[in-house]
Amino acid sequence: MAKTTENKLWGERFSEATDPRVDQFTESLSEDYRLFRHDIAGSIAHANALSRGGILTAIETKKIICGLKEVEKELEVGSVEFLTSDEDIHTYIERRLTEKIGPLGGKLHTGRSRNDQVALDLKLYLREKITEILHQTVLLQKGLVVQAEKQIDIYLPGYTHLQRAQPVLLSHHLLAYYEMLERDRTRFADCQKRLNQMPLGAGALAGNSFQLSRKVVADELRFKALTANSIDTVSDRDFIAEFLSASSILMVHLSRWAEEWILWASSEFGFITLSDRFCTGSSIMPQKKNPDVLELVRGKSGRVFGALVNILVITKGLPFSYNRDLQEDKRPLFDTVETVLESLTLMTLLLSEVQFNRMKMEAAASDSLLLATDLADYLAQKGLPFREAHGIVGKIVQEAIANQKPLHKWPITEFQKRSRIFQNDLLNVLTPRAAIEKRGGVGGTATASVKAAIQRIKKQW
Amino acid sequence: MAKTTENKLWGERFSEATDPRVDQFTESLSEDYRLFRHDIAGSIAHANALSRGGILTAIETKKIICGLKEVEKELEVGSVEFLTSDEDIHTYIERRLTEKIGPLGGKLHTGRSRNDQVALDLKLYLREKITEILHQTVLLQKGLVVQAEKQIDIYLPGYTHLQRAQPVLLSHHLLAYYEMLERDRTRFADCQKRLNQMPLGAGALAGNSFQLSRKVVADELRFKALTANSIDTVSDRDFIAEFLSASSILMVHLSRWAEEWILWASSEFGFITLSDRFCTGSSIMPQKKNPDVLELVRGKSGRVFGALVNILVITKGLPFSYNRDLQEDKRPLFDTVETVLESLTLMTLLLSEVQFNRMKMEAAASDSLLLATDLADYLAQKGLPFREAHGIVGKIVQEAIANQKPLHKWPITEFQKRSRIFQNDLLNVLTPRAAIEKRGGVGGTATASVKAAIQRIKKQW
Amino acid sequence: MAKTTENKLWGERFSEATDPRVDQFTESLSEDYRLFRHDIAGSIAHANALSRGGILTAIETKKIICGLKEVEKELEVGSVEFLTSDEDIHTYIERRLTEKIGPLGGKLHTGRSRNDQVALDLKLYLREKITEILHQTVLLQKGLVVQAEKQIDIYLPGYTHLQRAQPVLLSHHLLAYYEMLERDRTRFADCQKRLNQMPLGAGALAGNSFQLSRKVVADELRFKALTANSIDTVSDRDFIAEFLSASSILMVHLSRWAEEWILWASSEFGFITLSDRFCTGSSIMPQKKNPDVLELVRGKSGRVFGALVNILVITKGLPFSYNRDLQEDKRPLFDTVETVLESLTLMTLLLSEVQFNRMKMEAAASDSLLLATDLADYLAQKGLPFREAHGIVGKIVQEAIANQKPLHKWPITEFQKRSRIFQNDLLNVLTPRAAIEKRGGVGGTATASVKAAIQRIKKQW
Amino acid sequence: MAKTTENKLWGERFSEATDPRVDQFTESLSEDYRLFRHDIAGSIAHANALSRGGILTAIETKKIICGLKEVEKELEVGSVEFLTSDEDIHTYIERRLTEKIGPLGGKLHTGRSRNDQVALDLKLYLREKITEILHQTVLLQKGLVVQAEKQIDIYLPGYTHLQRAQPVLLSHHLLAYYEMLERDRTRFADCQKRLNQMPLGAGALAGNSFQLSRKVVADELRFKALTANSIDTVSDRDFIAEFLSASSILMVHLSRWAEEWILWASSEFGFITLSDRFCTGSSIMPQKKNPDVLELVRGKSGRVFGALVNILVITKGLPFSYNRDLQEDKRPLFDTVETVLESLTLMTLLLSEVQFNRMKMEAAASDSLLLATDLADYLAQKGLPFREAHGIVGKIVQEAIANQKPLHKWPITEFQKRSRIFQNDLLNVLTPRAAIEKRGGVGGTATASVKAAIQRIKKQW
Repeated sequence: MAKTTENKLWGERFSEATDPRVDQFTESLSEDYRLFRHDIAGSIAHANALSRGGILTAIETKKIICGLKEVEKELEVGSVEFLTSDEDIHTYIERRLTEKIGPLGGKLHTGRSRNDQVALDLKLYLREKITEILHQTVLLQKGLVVQAEKQIDIYLPGYTHLQRAQPVLLSHHLLAYYEMLERDRTRFADCQKRLNQMPLGAGALAGNSFQLSRKVVADELRFKALTANSIDTVSDRDFIAEFLSASSILMVHLSRWAEEWILWASSEFGFITLSDRFCTGSSIMPQKKNPDVLELVRGKSGRVFGALVNILVITKGLPFSYNRDLQEDKRPLFDTVETVLESLTLMTLLLSEVQFNRMKMEAAASDSLLLATDLADYLAQKGLPFREAHGIVGKIVQEAIANQKPLHKWPITEFQKRSRIFQNDLLNVLTPRAAIEKRGGVGGTATASVKAAIQRIKKQW
Repeated sequence: MAKTTENKLWGERFSEATDPRVDQFTESLSEDYRLFRHDIAGSIAHANALSRGGILTAIETKKIICGLKEVEKELEVGSVEFLTSDEDIHTYIERRLTEKIGPLGGKLHTGRSRNDQVALDLKLYLREKITEILHQTVLLQKGLVVQAEKQIDIYLPGYTHLQRAQPVLLSHHLLAYYEMLERDRTRFADCQKRLNQMPLGAGALAGNSFQLSRKVVADELRFKALTANSIDTVSDRDFIAEFLSASSILMVHLSRWAEEWILWASSEFGFITLSDRFCTGSSIMPQKKNPDVLELVRGKSGRVFGALVNILVITKGLPFSYNRDLQEDKRPLFDTVETVLESLTLMTLLLSEVQFNRMKMEAAASDSLLLATDLADYLAQKGLPFREAHGIVGKIVQEAIANQKPLHKWPITEFQKRSRIFQNDLLNVLTPRAAIEKRGGVGGTATASVKAAIQRIKKQW
Repeated sequence: MAKTTENKLWGERFSEATDPRVDQFTESLSEDYRLFRHDIAGSIAHANALSRGGILTAIETKKIICGLKEVEKELEVGSVEFLTSDEDIHTYIERRLTEKIGPLGGKLHTGRSRNDQVALDLKLYLREKITEILHQTVLLQKGLVVQAEKQIDIYLPGYTHLQRAQPVLLSHHLLAYYEMLERDRTRFADCQKRLNQMPLGAGALAGNSFQLSRKVVADELRFKALTANSIDTVSDRDFIAEFLSASSILMVHLSRWAEEWILWASSEFGFITLSDRFCTGSSIMPQKKNPDVLELVRGKSGRVFGALVNILVITKGLPFSYNRDLQEDKRPLFDTVETVLESLTLMTLLLSEVQFNRMKMEAAASDSLLLATDLADYLAQKGLPFREAHGIVGKIVQEAIANQKPLHKWPITEFQKRSRIFQNDLLNVLTPRAAIEKRGGVGGTATASVKAAIQRIKKQW
Repeated sequence: MAKTTENKLWGERFSEATDPRVDQFTESLSEDYRLFRHDIAGSIAHANALSRGGILTAIETKKIICGLKEVEKELEVGSVEFLTSDEDIHTYIERRLTEKIGPLGGKLHTGRSRNDQVALDLKLYLREKITEILHQTVLLQKGLVVQAEKQIDIYLPGYTHLQRAQPVLLSHHLLAYYEMLERDRTRFADCQKRLNQMPLGAGALAGNSFQLSRKVVADELRFKALTANSIDTVSDRDFIAEFLSASSILMVHLSRWAEEWILWASSEFGFITLSDRFCTGSSIMPQKKNPDVLELVRGKSGRVFGALVNILVITKGLPFSYNRDLQEDKRPLFDTVETVLESLTLMTLLLSEVQFNRMKMEAAASDSLLLATDLADYLAQKGLPFREAHGIVGKIVQEAIANQKPLHKWPITEFQKRSRIFQNDLLNVLTPRAAIEKRGGVGGTATASVKAAIQRIKKQW
């Protein structure tokens, strides 16, 4: 039987071939094939550094780079066959390169180790994916602003404790989603900035002995800086943990939004109608139209939190430097990147086709109990300590509920029985519109405040 | 363009086809194809119940069952093409069935919903997989007992706080792994017992209106009981959460063992030598022989904990009954089943070929400081309050370290200077063997105790 | 300065006192004082074993036991002063004992270590607390049955995807909560059964050298069995991880229930009214009545999941045997016990005073679209393949929505235009009651099925 | 019986007092008393804004501020009595204020809600605590640099897979810890920067109707900006989740370091000796000196990860805006702040007194197999493809192990038998020092590189 160590980068030291079940257990190719473009870009930069350092001649360098590009093309069109013994994408690429250009291929690994190579590949990959995520986040934010401008005059109840609290503009509510995403955007950007340090040259853990210029590699691959310590470089997976943290917080946001819209799409709320294109039906109940996309976005938060726990557990208590446990970083990383991108995309599509049901929203917001705060504010504005005002209105509310008599139907004399302070100008207070427009100032729900918020946002674009 | 709802079980109510990105986002076929055998077994049982209930004639039943078996064969040999519109394995199977036997295929879904169907499939799948895990756990336990018997006379230091504490038999140490696994075994068995309730018949959530005999289905599929409430039946994923909990605890155990053996395989400990077949090398350092399998087992604990968090987060705060979030249960479940089975298998293999280095172990255990407890016990046995004995020996130890003079080289007179209680019989105490053999009784490390433990275990087989 | 090691059980070996910040960092007394009763019960049992083993005389034993009981009394009335140097409850108790009865107190620790002692205390504590949890769970289950009997004739919509699906009995819905709790009950019982193995006698890790009868201790403390391996005994925290898993699943259940009732208490659903005694108000909005208890129960699921992650992370990758990391098991354990007991209690209270709003529930369930499945079942019962029936009804539903014409207002001729199969007997089908009563059989929502379920439950009491 | 709603900010609307068990379940005072200084600072700023807005007169403002300062003083000296009905620190402070200055105290809550108030308090608290953490992190980093300079000439084996890999300078290893902490520092700083937006003025959720200047408050409390949307402001807990993420990553780092030093402090490694002041002993084994502080730091990572999971779970799927679930944010936040600060402090102390055992370290690094990479590099430098060089050296290593003959004892002729390329200059390569000094360049382990790294760091201070 052929030794299955034959293609491996390290087989000569061993007297026995690895057990095939071990090969299967330890391989990472089924996950890390996604890194092939980044691996090849990194290898080309490394070849150039070897050339500058006099390890490769100009001709050798050219041959290696051509070979790498051929291997890349094969991978792009998908006409490749992975062997069990390939272990990982790095081994596969070196094997194919050597099959193409002969033993010269074996020079490429001079002065580098898989430890710094994989750190490089992961950083290149993640840097690129964060750019995509930033882009997709901005698209979603723009979708929110478009809707906020379109729906500027609709109002609905704002809720606390899922109890109707005070009337707010729908636009204001949509911009709250915008603000959550804005923090996500800056968090991803910070993560990207922090990971933008070039790891190659750290070797296995101690640096390399070929005096290669790490700066050459960093410049070619557009890194802002070099990592500062070779041991840390091959041990570090902070960039993954930080990315998964930022992704978890984003998924909290999307799941909150999704939860809210699942409520809004229910018969009981009826605030929105989702496009048929974003719903599915039931195999048994012909009338059902289910908000599956929203439910899955909400559910996928669990997947991303799980990935975050995964990476924290893997790295917890691990001594320096590289340990094979770190190979388990790939699945949570790749899965999260895909989940986040898909979730952002689907929410953007769904948002663009949602229908807001103004009648339902405004009817719900017209419950006069939502104006209780305004009643108390009215008294406070006329000099009563707020705490007393709150007490008086509390009793009014209790009566209104007991007698099932909405506040806007109370004659002014009834109010005056509870406090002499009430005057005829009270009537101007007791409408949802009035309640909304009184809440001006930065961040408030008054139309002017919301329009100002939209202008502030658009100015940044 | 063809409506992509065309194969779906619910398309007629919708005026617009689902967006293809939605199809992609909501499909579960790429995960749940694993359930095809269980889905078909469940469908056959359901067809029989429909037959008994007079919904299907004998001929119809036979045709449906034959059709299902053909579909199963196709899936087994892998000659199938999944369409995006297939959504999930249930839809695929019904589509293929209908292609084979015509509209009659459409009768199979009478009186059931995908909600109870998927609950059934998942339970059949997990019941089977737990049986495999139980089997594999027992193999690993037997491997431990084999080694424990073989290595009965080797001793090594037992550690607390990773400091050498007291000498113990290697066999005793190996049986500690056995005991951890024994609890795992009973936990998995409890989980299997608890999930063994038949869900079909719950319909979408309210039960079915066809008076089908759920007992017929349960008997055919060897379930012990029926689920007791239809709403709970389609909402419940406890069996997955409990399975993932049991798996997490198992992975804690395997990771502890792995950690220990990674230490033991280091140059500093040198207690074991792993077979080349379970190690890999370095791409850059020719001398390296790395315990990758152990590192990956340790690392994969993170994956399983992540899966547990995932399922808890998915189900937390979800109102009754079925919500699409639950579809996200599949990936953590399937991934954990595979991880657990592989980890158990690899540890069994690795254990069977490990080489224990008696010299290194016994040398490490011969540090006379490990006998300090025995010195204190000696004094206590002669009537000194243990706390005082501990104090006296503490000072002796301090001196031994300061003067770098091992305790077994101290003349008896030196001991007597610290306490008159010390007599010549002390010398019999101050050997690792003596320390081990004194710790008899149930669960102790004395050879007799360990042999008794092995006998107790073997009697149960 | 007084050495702060002075009260410690191990100070003599050290030449320098521990840093006070270290004392503060490593102390566990602020958590483990909760174990004092269990520690003293364990110590008394140990004293009896020492007596049987001839290590203590009858008089000594009596003195020690009396001293321990005095210490217990002091702790019960709370008249105690803990010193920083007390480290943990075990040290405190031994110090006080020795202050009371002199050096004899120092004999109590003969043949045991804090490692097996703390394992014993934790198991005694948890065994007792699980009994309380089981009791409280049963009270909550009984509350559900009481309500289910009382509300037997109310119906409401059952939901899937938070869309109204089919009418169900409120009692049936309440019994779904019962079933979730029933699984919790058996899970806690399994956990209790599995932990019921006596650890004392394992010593530091290797067993004890005093030939103490572990069986005497086990019998006195009512343990079913002895732990089988001393190394495993002091390393094992499975019972905590399993308990936290069972608690996490329970909290999933309570949070699902809480989520549902928060929805039900909203203006939009209006299905229930909570007692003022279980709600709180707003500091600013006088009309608010917030379901805080339900929200906190839902939120506290996070706390318990966090505790589970905590214990898994602590034990992951820890070599044998005892490591100080394990001290961190206490906070998640104690906090979860308290959270679970409080949450169960509060839900029981809240349930007993909730008011179900029949009018709102039944109005919501009277939406004729909820009978679409029954229409399809009608056709299927008359021989049409269910899949075709589903398609026909899907189109009927689409029209009903488009024309805003509820199905129960359609003349039979309109149905017949869509399928010749419809006959006059259709009218009997198209009511919520009919839909409910048709779903008989075990676990269905028909009144007879629900009553049978209640009988089955009550028979077990 | 006195209504227990009497001190509450919202009691008037309710006809029944809350159940005392509910008070107990919902109170947060036992956690949030920690916020009193921040609550009072926020209240003073709010009083000033009310004054500017004409709601309070100058005299009223002064009275309120004096009253608040008195309440603060009482809390500082601890002479306070909390009532069950106080609910939280905000309620307590308003009650005491009103007791001191009469109904005027009731004016303070004008134009604000507990929802924006608690957001403000939490941000003030966390902003301050992050400053402390940043400070403590820098102290620890400085401690590392001090040791790195002191130990500049010691070397030890660098490890991968816990197998000795290549010799490195101890200083280089210590600076790897520095680099991990450096990323932590910037992560905490980013978190602090992002949270530095002033929330007050958001009211319950919709803004306030008193035209208060939020800028006045922000300036007084030194916030950089205002939050932009009132709904988002009271719903947002990102700053806690981000802080717990940054803390989790920090704890990964400290736990890795702790794990490493636990290994180093073992008899097998023997690389360091910890000061007695940072160790504890055993209650039973007099010889034990346990690295408890390191073990607890490692174990406490679980606590912090658990806190992160806790906050993610709490906020997942929560609709806007404030929900009571959010009250559960306090315990994980406060506990993590304390854990992180203590862990950093303890590591700083421990580091300052550790003793490095040069002999043990250098002996371990003198294993000639650690130079295998250098052998391969030697061949590669002379033009052999690295892959072939690796193969040749792999075979040499295999022989060296088989024959137990260290490489530095091989005559040059033996090497030449394996490859003609080996020349006499090989001998210069085969020492640990040579291996270290060859790895120059940015981030390498050569003495010059490490010194340059230290200079770079010190220049930033």
